[in-house]
Amino acid sequence: MDASKIDARDRALDGEEVARLRQALDEQEQRSLRLLADFDNLRRRTAREQDAARREGRRAALLPLLSVLDTLERALAVGSTDPDFYEGMAATHRQFMTALREAGAEPVDSVGQSFDPNFHEAAATAPSESVEPGTVVRELRRGWRVGDELLRPAQVVVAAAPKANDPWR
Amino acid sequence: MDASKIDARDRALDGEEVARLRQALDEQEQRSLRLLADFDNLRRRTAREQDAARREGRRAALLPLLSVLDTLERALAVGSTDPDFYEGMAATHRQFMTALREAGAEPVDSVGQSFDPNFHEAAATAPSESVEPGTVVRELRRGWRVGDELLRPAQVVVAAAPKANDPWR
Repeated sequence: MDASKIDARDRALDGEEVARLRQALDEQEQRSLRLLADFDNLRRRTAREQDAARREGRRAALLPLLSVLDTLERALAVGSTDPDFYEGMAATHRQFMTALREAGAEPVDSVGQSFDPNFHEAAATAPSESVEPGTVVRELRRGWRVGDELLRPAQVVVAAAPKANDPWR
Repeated sequence: MDASKIDARDRALDGEEVARLRQALDEQEQRSLRLLADFDNLRRRTAREQDAARREGRRAALLPLLSVLDTLERALAVGSTDPDFYEGMAATHRQFMTALREAGAEPVDSVGQSFDPNFHEAAATAPSESVEPGTVVRELRRGWRVGDELLRPAQVVVAAAPKANDPWR
């Protein structure tokens, strides 16, 4: 082969190599972009999931303790013939409420509010002439929430329209 | 220019292009590898951090409630002249202990154990002839842990060697 033929062959090989490299480079760039996007998504999801895990940990810790407060309140409601001991338990109760608030939990508003299925659980209805139907008139068990998230619903009695024939609606 | 000169010039340009492309491709490949490694690290860290966030949520919820239990126990220790009311409070206390265990918390072992600075806080030492020096002989405040993680240390009194001249060591 003469020199110009070798040149031509090498030239063709270089041209192929350029085309191959350009394609490989393009693929690698696409790959990097996809990885960057995945990375960003994971980072965003991570932050969200960490918040969720923190709330879940708090929720798991608080739920069983709410029943303890219920028991304490039932006992306090009965009263005692020993005023000193009773006062010690009333103080324990106040500290309990404060500790739950410190832990981020707050009682759900109920009596006087409109019934809200997101926060209230209707245990019964009762006819009422004094309030609008659908208003919570009594709380049977206190509900608790952490921010907008429900720990447990308030169990409530809801006002029904007063009716002569069907007082319980 | 004759054809062979144009060929030679184009050939040189292609050669430069190939070198440039090869370098760019190499850089992109390195970049993808780094991103993949970062991605894997983030994923591993994410799993760890989620566990940590769950524990942190639980810890933040439980800590203020441990003081409530302390108050309840102090009042129970004093006793009451109203046995029915007292029994209601004793039941509240049992339920409280159960709820804390349900929430994942466990009391720290102390009396009879060797003093362990990871779980015990020495409030005082007391000479003892009956137990090895360094043994916990009394618990002033119960400690709590979640698994191997300490919520709060037990405050304890630790046995010291009995000495004639310096009984408190």
